[in-house]
Amino acid sequence: MHVVVNAAMSADGKLSTHDREQVAISGEADFDRVDGLRADSDAVMVGVGTVLADDPSLTVDDPDRIAQRGDRGDPPQPARVVADSRARTPPDAQILDDEAETYLVVGERAATEKVERLESTGATVIAAGHDRVDLSAGLDALESHGIDRLMVEGGGELIFSLFADDLVDELSVFVGPMLIGGRDAPTLADGDGFLEGFPVLDLRDVEQMDGGVLLRWDVA
Amino acid sequence: MHVVVNAAMSADGKLSTHDREQVAISGEADFDRVDGLRADSDAVMVGVGTVLADDPSLTVDDPDRIAQRGDRGDPPQPARVVADSRARTPPDAQILDDEAETYLVVGERAATEKVERLESTGATVIAAGHDRVDLSAGLDALESHGIDRLMVEGGGELIFSLFADDLVDELSVFVGPMLIGGRDAPTLADGDGFLEGFPVLDLRDVEQMDGGVLLRWDVA
Ligand SMILES: NC(=O)c1ccc[n+]([C@@H]2O[C@H](COP(=O)([O-])OP(=O)(O)OC[C@H]3O[C@@H](n4cnc5c(N)ncnc54)[C@H](OP(=O)(O)O)[C@@H]3O)[C@@H](O)[C@H]2O)c1
Ligand SMILES: NC(=O)c1ccc[n+]([C@@H]2O[C@H](COP(=O)([O-])OP(=O)(O)OC[C@H]3O[C@@H](n4cnc5c(N)ncnc54)[C@H](OP(=O)(O)O)[C@@H]3O)[C@@H](O)[C@H]2O)c1
Repeated sequence: MHVVVNAAMSADGKLSTHDREQVAISGEADFDRVDGLRADSDAVMVGVGTVLADDPSLTVDDPDRIAQRGDRGDPPQPARVVADSRARTPPDAQILDDEAETYLVVGERAATEKVERLESTGATVIAAGHDRVDLSAGLDALESHGIDRLMVEGGGELIFSLFADDLVDELSVFVGPMLIGGRDAPTLADGDGFLEGFPVLDLRDVEQMDGGVLLRWDVA
Repeated sequence: MHVVVNAAMSADGKLSTHDREQVAISGEADFDRVDGLRADSDAVMVGVGTVLADDPSLTVDDPDRIAQRGDRGDPPQPARVVADSRARTPPDAQILDDEAETYLVVGERAATEKVERLESTGATVIAAGHDRVDLSAGLDALESHGIDRLMVEGGGELIFSLFADDLVDELSVFVGPMLIGGRDAPTLADGDGFLEGFPVLDLRDVEQMDGGVLLRWDVA
């Protein structure tokens, strides 16, 4: 499976404010680029923290891109995936609507009642790992469902774990023209952090847009 | 006074690991650029957190740059400045050595005994603010000592406060080709963080070096 992480951060590395309010970090050009990346993916993944904070739908907007997916025999929308150990995704979350297929990757100890409630929305529940989702096993299971190109849109907890498990191939970061600040604000990669064996990145290209810079890195 | 903030961060916005161990984020080209920036400044400032974590000397390395400073009638080395409300700078810190003049900006309530001990090393102590250093008053006092071009090298707590007090003119950030991660790792701008009135940046230029990218922003 090919895994691309994509996110927008402020010039100081934040994904949102310390109270987890979404901030408009990028603009039209970057939104359109993200829409294209989604359209090129078999599935788009987030952590349950992002579902709870932002209630995203993660769908492709542009009708031409949706049509092109159809032309090449793909479903009109990429699937959505949530890493959600305890099945905390609210049943009325946008990510569970009928616009696209949804996979919830939960831990084996997630409450059966919650899992059944989520399955009743039409979502496919995959168990991987005990208390916390085992991302490597989860991605293998997604691959067996035909997901070969996975885009990950955040947040920082999920992104850190994917790097810690050596599962990321590419990282695209839009660095926006603003400062958010805050020692408790979510950053591009949170989790426990590395003390050694830092993931090494290769800069593939740099592009100015929306007053900021898009940095595209390959993971070495 | 013209204030330039300069720092090196990982691709995810961290200045160091969560245990505050210094990490080599940039390389030779960026070190040389920083040396040049120091040589062009009247003083180089850090917060006491950086003194305690890294014990930096903040001096210019290149003999030619030192000579050029002399040629234009400047002291061989820029002064060093520490924002240090409670006068916690250790008397044997490198920043207090004889290589350059040192200013310690303390709060009015800093213990007299500690202040006197630091003055006995030859440093100039400036009181500004009560419990915590009032940066605006501190910078005014430095200006009255002839400091017109101030370079700030971090860390994230000091940088955030300078932005919060609207004291920054330029921000130069080297974004390095590595991930550090960590929800508790120091970032480029920590402090409480903004919830609104985010400082707006204007991208002046983008330069690739040392496998990463130097972003230079003007504060709008
Ligand atoms: N600017 C952007 O591009 C962007 C993009 C996305 C999000 N955001 C912002 O990011 C914030 C949310 O980020 P976040 O870091 O709190 O949440 P997140 O990464 O979206 O989700 C984290 C949660 O995922 C679950 N998870 C399951 N398995 C995991 C694993 N192996 N490793 C890590 N997490 C796992 C965990 O909850 P369980 O233990 O319950 O499973 C964890 O708390 C919001 O403020 C949102 O606005 C910004
Ligand atoms: N990569 C880089 O370019 C770079 C550069 C510098 C530092 N670093 C790293 O950054 C870390 C240290 O950063 P840090 O954020 O902890 O420390 P810092 O910003 O260097 O210092 C913070 C301290 O400065 C004092 N201070 C005085 N007045 C202040 C004010 N008005 N606002 C804010 N602080 C004020 C405070 O202590 P009092 O209340 O006692 O005064 C505060 O705790 C270290 O891990 C270091 O390695 C990296």
